[in-house]
Amino acid sequence: MKIFLNFKNYETTTGQNAINLAKICDKYQKEVVVIPQTTDIYLISKTVKNKVFAQHADNIKFGSHTGFILPESIKEAGARGCLINHSEHRLKLADIEALVEKMRNLNLISVVCTNNVGVSVSAAALNPDFIAIEPPELIGSGKAVSKENPKIITDTINKVRKINGDVKILCGAGISNGEDVRAAIKLGVDGVLLASAFTNAKNPEIVLDDLVSGLD
Amino acid sequence: MKIFLNFKNYETTTGQNAINLAKICDKYQKEVVVIPQTTDIYLISKTVKNKVFAQHADNIKFGSHTGFILPESIKEAGARGCLINHSEHRLKLADIEALVEKMRNLNLISVVCTNNVGVSVSAAALNPDFIAIEPPELIGSGKAVSKENPKIITDTINKVRKINGDVKILCGAGISNGEDVRAAIKLGVDGVLLASAFTNAKNPEIVLDDLVSGLD
Amino acid sequence: MKIFLNFKNYETTTGQNAINLAKICDKYQKEVVVIPQTTDIYLISKTVKNKVFAQHADNIKFGSHTGFILPESIKEAGARGCLINHSEHRLKLADIEALVEKMRNLNLISVVCTNNVGVSVSAAALNPDFIAIEPPELIGSGKAVSKENPKIITDTINKVRKINGDVKILCGAGISNGEDVRAAIKLGVDGVLLASAFTNAKNPEIVLDDLVSGLD
Amino acid sequence: MKIFLNFKNYETTTGQNAINLAKICDKYQKEVVVIPQTTDIYLISKTVKNKVFAQHADNIKFGSHTGFILPESIKEAGARGCLINHSEHRLKLADIEALVEKMRNLNLISVVCTNNVGVSVSAAALNPDFIAIEPPELIGSGKAVSKENPKIITDTINKVRKINGDVKILCGAGISNGEDVRAAIKLGVDGVLLASAFTNAKNPEIVLDDLVSGLD
Repeated sequence: MKIFLNFKNYETTTGQNAINLAKICDKYQKEVVVIPQTTDIYLISKTVKNKVFAQHADNIKFGSHTGFILPESIKEAGARGCLINHSEHRLKLADIEALVEKMRNLNLISVVCTNNVGVSVSAAALNPDFIAIEPPELIGSGKAVSKENPKIITDTINKVRKINGDVKILCGAGISNGEDVRAAIKLGVDGVLLASAFTNAKNPEIVLDDLVSGLD
Repeated sequence: MKIFLNFKNYETTTGQNAINLAKICDKYQKEVVVIPQTTDIYLISKTVKNKVFAQHADNIKFGSHTGFILPESIKEAGARGCLINHSEHRLKLADIEALVEKMRNLNLISVVCTNNVGVSVSAAALNPDFIAIEPPELIGSGKAVSKENPKIITDTINKVRKINGDVKILCGAGISNGEDVRAAIKLGVDGVLLASAFTNAKNPEIVLDDLVSGLD
Repeated sequence: MKIFLNFKNYETTTGQNAINLAKICDKYQKEVVVIPQTTDIYLISKTVKNKVFAQHADNIKFGSHTGFILPESIKEAGARGCLINHSEHRLKLADIEALVEKMRNLNLISVVCTNNVGVSVSAAALNPDFIAIEPPELIGSGKAVSKENPKIITDTINKVRKINGDVKILCGAGISNGEDVRAAIKLGVDGVLLASAFTNAKNPEIVLDDLVSGLD
Repeated sequence: MKIFLNFKNYETTTGQNAINLAKICDKYQKEVVVIPQTTDIYLISKTVKNKVFAQHADNIKFGSHTGFILPESIKEAGARGCLINHSEHRLKLADIEALVEKMRNLNLISVVCTNNVGVSVSAAALNPDFIAIEPPELIGSGKAVSKENPKIITDTINKVRKINGDVKILCGAGISNGEDVRAAIKLGVDGVLLASAFTNAKNPEIVLDDLVSGLD
């Protein structure tokens, strides 16, 4: 669990296309986490051996919540973890706290996404399994956070460690190749979160090989 | 397409339980529409011949919308239609309008849920395939709208028909048995929308047989 | 009530600056409606004789709704009407319907903002006092809807009139000068809604004189 | 600043009624903070010498945000601080963080409301001036948190102090009289946040005298 591939909602990551992309990841079952759309969790988790995470779940219990996404349901569909508070789907603080707790009770791995050092420390105080710091201005920019803004990563690590020695720390935004991954790992993170560089690549397999090479 | 079964997010409608409930519906393939959780659309639509609808989709296009539900994705997963603006998941007017249009372009059947006569007329002006009037105070009450408040149904039909002769009209809230269905059909609606009476029944098959008997 | 000036949240429209801008409008008490921030409604309505509208109110009743804006409170502060569903503050359909009704009961004038022809018809079905069609792509563009896209205005008028003969129709987006106003009035609208051309003008009084000249 | 009176949106706290209630507080200018509706901030801060706080502000900058509440505007209207994330108006984590920062820059006092120990620690990590712990199940219950659930208060104090020695800590929910206040202060909080016991009292002055007596 070092490279977290967020499939988002691209045409390349919808339905059968998503299955095809996921199959490429099967080559790196230990390193790569696949994060498909809610509709595709079931089939992808039947198809590949990688850990599959959900992109989102709602802070709801069994009951009347038409159209919302139940944590229990992503688990039954095969998810092993869940992104919480992604930059494209920000959540209320009280819901983040409740979701982290709920994931823990369901034995699902929680990854709370954050946008700056302050929010990272605040999120780390909730004791999720992972936080993932992604400066919004670099998301989708092609400029890797690990090279453009290493300070936000080292500041996050330093300040988070003062209050939480256990939470794993990912970084994301603009990560595109093995070199970006290597730079991130060198700064001290436990892994990276990325999307378009892989999902929208002409040749995703080559991109993935390169990304994974950055882990060595 | 006369009886629309909203599975909501009950324990009885999650994962394998949802599959089991859906199989009961297979007996009435023409009459019954199954509306499972997003995670379960794929497997249920592979399992039963009933039309499967989604409980919700978001007003988004292919792109970066982590955790949201793409209309194209519910279609690829097997959905033939979608609830829009359910009382437990109210939407902005501009999003309802865009979703109705998007469902039309994707050849998916749109069902816009409404809470009173005024909202029903406003929704009907958007030309969805269906509107579904459900007075909130009767939802989950066990008191059928078709018997407790027939006036809201006939008023809706009369006022909607003044501006839209095509939209089909469902009613819901408290519908529990064949008699409630019969009363609704008699008032002039094209079908009913219900949830807990079926999903949480001790014997859902008996309940379904009874509900369908009300169509005669 | 022909020219509706939305003050938005500019530095030029905050606190004392807002009072100063409002005073300029006092010259055209009949023609110009002033729409300041919530904090400034009280003092502006004490200062000028123009009708003062609120930019927004929430669909709430007297009670526990900390931080939300009560329709009764904007009235007590001096507002005579309220924008509903502005493009920068879109609302749920059920809330729009309830707010239109509530404004009517409070004797406040309702202006429901819309983004296209379909939404305009749907909003008109709710019988507000006004709808205000503003194509989002032209808002703040400096290109007047009345000249760039006259068809959206005439289509709105034609389709709205089929179901509602009473609602007054405003248009907005990019309206900057008297010529834009004149073009709008010629297309058949009852008035215009604008913001930055006035609020951020070097000389707002000259701009206002020009805008009003377009009404002749 | 020991007793924070949230006026909410009651009929008793709207317009002239709000002014009358605020005047009662003038007797305890140092002890009591008045938190009126947005519409009433201006006039109340002109009328009484107590510190006036806003119930809410939005995470926006000067610009186009029709209908939202600008931090700069509540300051110009006379507010000296602001509630953030009240239980009736929960906010996204990223917005809470940004608002705390913005209040600091504007020299406004920030009070972040929280619902349990975990959220309190997370909020305290953002370094607001105050946090205010209010267990939702006791809000408006008439059962004082300081007597019904003293453990949530002492746990909050203990865990917050491990990461933040500076933030002041309020408690709220069900606080109704001087005895409740005294119990709270004894547990170690810096003050209390309350609403209906004062705002909806038959004789608010007597209630306030009693509340303040609990500070000795």
